[in-house]
Amino acid sequence: MSTTETQISSLRYKGDHLLLLDQQQLPHHTVYINVTTIEQVWDCIKKLNVRGAPAIGIAAAFGIVLWAKSHTSLSFVEFKEQLNCQAAFLSTSRPTAVNLFWALDRITASVANVRETKEAVERIEQEALLIQKEDEEICRKIGENGLTLLSDGDRLMTHCNAGGIATAKYGTALAPLYLAKEKGWNLSVYANETRPVFQGARLTAWELKQAGVDVTLITDNMAAHTLKTKQVSAVIVGCDRVAANGDTANKIGTFGLALQAKALGIPFYVASPLSTIDLHTPTGDDIPIEERPAEEITHVQGVPIAPKGVKVFNPAFDVTPHEYITAIITEKGIARGNYKKALAKLKK
Amino acid sequence: MSTTETQISSLRYKGDHLLLLDQQQLPHHTVYINVTTIEQVWDCIKKLNVRGAPAIGIAAAFGIVLWAKSHTSLSFVEFKEQLNCQAAFLSTSRPTAVNLFWALDRITASVANVRETKEAVERIEQEALLIQKEDEEICRKIGENGLTLLSDGDRLMTHCNAGGIATAKYGTALAPLYLAKEKGWNLSVYANETRPVFQGARLTAWELKQAGVDVTLITDNMAAHTLKTKQVSAVIVGCDRVAANGDTANKIGTFGLALQAKALGIPFYVASPLSTIDLHTPTGDDIPIEERPAEEITHVQGVPIAPKGVKVFNPAFDVTPHEYITAIITEKGIARGNYKKALAKLKK
Repeated sequence: MSTTETQISSLRYKGDHLLLLDQQQLPHHTVYINVTTIEQVWDCIKKLNVRGAPAIGIAAAFGIVLWAKSHTSLSFVEFKEQLNCQAAFLSTSRPTAVNLFWALDRITASVANVRETKEAVERIEQEALLIQKEDEEICRKIGENGLTLLSDGDRLMTHCNAGGIATAKYGTALAPLYLAKEKGWNLSVYANETRPVFQGARLTAWELKQAGVDVTLITDNMAAHTLKTKQVSAVIVGCDRVAANGDTANKIGTFGLALQAKALGIPFYVASPLSTIDLHTPTGDDIPIEERPAEEITHVQGVPIAPKGVKVFNPAFDVTPHEYITAIITEKGIARGNYKKALAKLKK
Repeated sequence: MSTTETQISSLRYKGDHLLLLDQQQLPHHTVYINVTTIEQVWDCIKKLNVRGAPAIGIAAAFGIVLWAKSHTSLSFVEFKEQLNCQAAFLSTSRPTAVNLFWALDRITASVANVRETKEAVERIEQEALLIQKEDEEICRKIGENGLTLLSDGDRLMTHCNAGGIATAKYGTALAPLYLAKEKGWNLSVYANETRPVFQGARLTAWELKQAGVDVTLITDNMAAHTLKTKQVSAVIVGCDRVAANGDTANKIGTFGLALQAKALGIPFYVASPLSTIDLHTPTGDDIPIEERPAEEITHVQGVPIAPKGVKVFNPAFDVTPHEYITAIITEKGIARGNYKKALAKLKK
């Protein structure tokens, strides 16, 4: 079911199957899961084998492709009916990241003017490939725009993993670091480990170290002390959904980090593809926050670290109100100030 | 070397040995380490088998007792010379908690007017027992004073472990919770797990659950989301050293938590025995911050959770500037506002 490879990308489409980088096994093992069904894609999203808002969207799109390719014999009426049903099924895998819904909408919309099953299957495959290709370009542009806010020598801080493996390539929050490296700039970054799932320790520290970027790992609660004593220039994070007013849902801990950055006078940037900005969600209060199992907190890789049966609260995301966000960096430009206006303009 | 017992206290003095609760094995095993030498006490402080500023002070005092009792044949001149040397040795075990130095000073001062070794050994033992007994009374008074700031039904948040096992009994930050229980009040508390050593998950959640206090475990980075969405009335923490101006060194993450509480308009209380207030330390800038090994972050109970060889920053404490502290609760009263004046008055 699994193959070990050396070159890193979050997802590779192989016509009749997907190779999905198993992010749960990082940093110890670089393993691609061989995925052949839409049910497996659902499972990989739910269990965090694939994660990161853009990567989830891409995986979901190819999940529909796998389903479509094995249902070419359906009548077109049946196909369309089942297509909507399959998209609805995949959308239940994670509630917070909007890219999942966005990608599924794009896939279903791509067959709006199609008249027969074979063409629909081709269109769906083309659309999924396009989503993946565009994501790489988008991330590169986010990196370029992000760099305009930074200078050679800057020290950054990031939370969770909004890196290459959370997207098609480059990442969002980490894109400026990769592009700076190409440019010969010397940027360094503090990576918060990001409890409970350790995306910062397992993924961000790993992918940056692999790329030769100067990264230092800290625990989440070391952020304030590090921001204050290590001359950090800016905090930069990714996001799972940006509401129309700029309120931003991202990995749990982002809100607290934004409060700390604001108190210490350090700019707090959100890197966001336009696909993650959801104008249909008016404010952060309208974003559902996924709660995950207690075992994510009480156990670390199967090892218990808390008393048996202790009560646990495990929200996977939080919402950072827009007033704590210095700027939102998109592929089309940088939004600041009146986010409602600025984001609507960028999304046009 | 070790015995398993049921009733919980951080330290029991048995005349020729100490039973030190091994806090590294909690919550899975309740084991007392049988300590017979001062070198073992140094080791137990260094390796966090005993921790919590007041408990460290008590352990250090009894460390000197163990040494003194096995050196009764020294001439008094030699005894006093070596006593100072042994106290200096113990003071190297941890640099941040001031109770260590305070307890050692009390012990050495107790023999100031003594003329012969036998009497000195007796005095030292009496002083150590007094420090332990006083600590229990002090914690109870801190709890009573803390309760005047709270109401029945309040939800609190705490960080690290400033509980019964960090002191002789009751704890400092947790004392109000224990006294509220005696009073029949219904207080509940969110315990931050406190990376990297998980004192919140392993110790606070454990001791409160054992005592029947309503405790919910969260990861450190869930604090802001929890404070905002769960109607938390107050944050209460212990401390390792309070400077003359009220700046407070405590477990890493306290500073960030204080910034978050302030931003969200939630009172932030520090519970501190007067022995933890060090008027000889003018401000927080003068408090040395211990840095600990990388493995505390990269491994959890021996299991690696980060890429091999990753760079790590691991400060064990941080300093919360006094302007983020709503009040400091001591056994003699509550300090607010002009801490320099208020603390000096309480220390008189």
